[in-house]
Amino acid sequence: MTPFEVTILGSNSAVPTPSRHPTSQLININHHYYLIDCGEGTQIQMRKFGIKFQRIEHIFISHLHGDHYFGLIGLLNTMHLLGREKPLTIHATKMLREIINIQLSVANTKLNYPIHYNYLEDNKESVILRDANVEVIATPVDHRIPCFGFVFHEAQRPLKLNKERIHSLQLGVEEIKELKQGRDIKRGGETIFVETVAEPPAIRRKYSFITDTKPNDSYLKVIENSDLLYHESTFMGDASLRAIDTFHSTNLQAATIATKTNCKKLVLGHFSTRYTKLEPIKEEARTVFENTELAIEGTTFKIEN
Amino acid sequence: MTPFEVTILGSNSAVPTPSRHPTSQLININHHYYLIDCGEGTQIQMRKFGIKFQRIEHIFISHLHGDHYFGLIGLLNTMHLLGREKPLTIHATKMLREIINIQLSVANTKLNYPIHYNYLEDNKESVILRDANVEVIATPVDHRIPCFGFVFHEAQRPLKLNKERIHSLQLGVEEIKELKQGRDIKRGGETIFVETVAEPPAIRRKYSFITDTKPNDSYLKVIENSDLLYHESTFMGDASLRAIDTFHSTNLQAATIATKTNCKKLVLGHFSTRYTKLEPIKEEARTVFENTELAIEGTTFKIEN
Repeated sequence: MTPFEVTILGSNSAVPTPSRHPTSQLININHHYYLIDCGEGTQIQMRKFGIKFQRIEHIFISHLHGDHYFGLIGLLNTMHLLGREKPLTIHATKMLREIINIQLSVANTKLNYPIHYNYLEDNKESVILRDANVEVIATPVDHRIPCFGFVFHEAQRPLKLNKERIHSLQLGVEEIKELKQGRDIKRGGETIFVETVAEPPAIRRKYSFITDTKPNDSYLKVIENSDLLYHESTFMGDASLRAIDTFHSTNLQAATIATKTNCKKLVLGHFSTRYTKLEPIKEEARTVFENTELAIEGTTFKIEN
Repeated sequence: MTPFEVTILGSNSAVPTPSRHPTSQLININHHYYLIDCGEGTQIQMRKFGIKFQRIEHIFISHLHGDHYFGLIGLLNTMHLLGREKPLTIHATKMLREIINIQLSVANTKLNYPIHYNYLEDNKESVILRDANVEVIATPVDHRIPCFGFVFHEAQRPLKLNKERIHSLQLGVEEIKELKQGRDIKRGGETIFVETVAEPPAIRRKYSFITDTKPNDSYLKVIENSDLLYHESTFMGDASLRAIDTFHSTNLQAATIATKTNCKKLVLGHFSTRYTKLEPIKEEARTVFENTELAIEGTTFKIEN
């Protein structure tokens, strides 16, 4: 099965420490690399975990609080110094471009590779990327500044055809290609329907990333039935007032959302530094949603449905 | 003896790795903290080495290449989140302020503490700080963009008075205070000269920090007789042409400068990532200047003359 996996590079909120880094995740879909958020030290984390960061094609930045992007300028600079030439696309709110450009400009740095910016628009859910591997939807969430969640929905893979049917129909190369793409073919006046030749299509895998936000109904629909849901869980249940004040969620709220939206697995992250032990965050969430895990850095979550 | 020491937080050039971080040093002079440069991950390094970074009063940024300041915005943000209220002074070229402010502004962050900016002016050597502990001189060096070295010259400490002379002259509290500051006192028509009461003044300790630069005569005078000289040494002797091209120095050039300027000890840093082993850099430099050490992160160099 082609890989569809999420590696946690950092999952602490606000402040980095030697053992807990700010938010960043690497998504590997069919050997194509997508980076979500890029807190300070992300490039060092990727080296530590042996991730070839020049392979990243798209970077998605949820919002412009520092713990989600202060490591980006360093990563872009290192990609340049190590000779990158292939383009990179950054999906973020508009001001990021200015922040990057001013820093390149004072250093007299002209990057060897082009950066394409795709601006996320306020309060609008939209498909921001569709390629051979994935469709990515950005969905506005409810934080103190404009902020977006991202839903990664695997592209429909080519269908598998039944070998006996290929043989009995004596299908040609071009005909097979069309059918694998899910398209019926014509032969004279006759139509060969896909359903009569192909195995049922594989279910498209789905990963949803939601941070930083208060719980909000606006994003429930788009994350429905995710195989894996990462939801911020800055606080535990007893700090729900603090969560409201700071536009964050608790572990119990995250678990409730996973239940409501029928997700298969929940990963909690964006932990407040007030929690020196993380296990209780998971244990408490499991009282609401059993299949809950912690976003411990270095962990890879594989989706293998 | 009051401390006068330099702790290396990072000394790699250009690109950070898990074991070699970009430039940053903490200077402790009489328990007052001064930070020089602040590459990505500096705040994490300080936590790792148990340095209380809220004690930092002044930050000096040599120049605006990323490996010397990309960690600054994160440090400033963390100081804020942890409740700092006391002022901080940043000595840097002018554009740094704009880079910091745009990032605070997009995050809607209003710092709890004031930052005072002291702009370093192009091509001008000047005293940029004089307080009870130290005098700091900024000296322009020769790099691809405006860049400054810094010389830390310990303030004259109060003189030690000879106890027997205090007794025999029956000196009062105010008289002792004046004499300790190196000022003669008057009693009626009579003058009591400092030299007749005080021990010879302690020699003022001196630390010079020179990076990134080609070797240049312009800064030789100001670093003369340093107890400790940190000089960049991006390359080894056989890469001197590459050093010229990139406006950097070799270890042999750094050692020659230490000799010429009569410094007591040389510390080499800003190592190119091409060198996986650092010992040979030191060994080669010692053929020119014997008392040479490497700026290995985590090392503290104490000046105890």
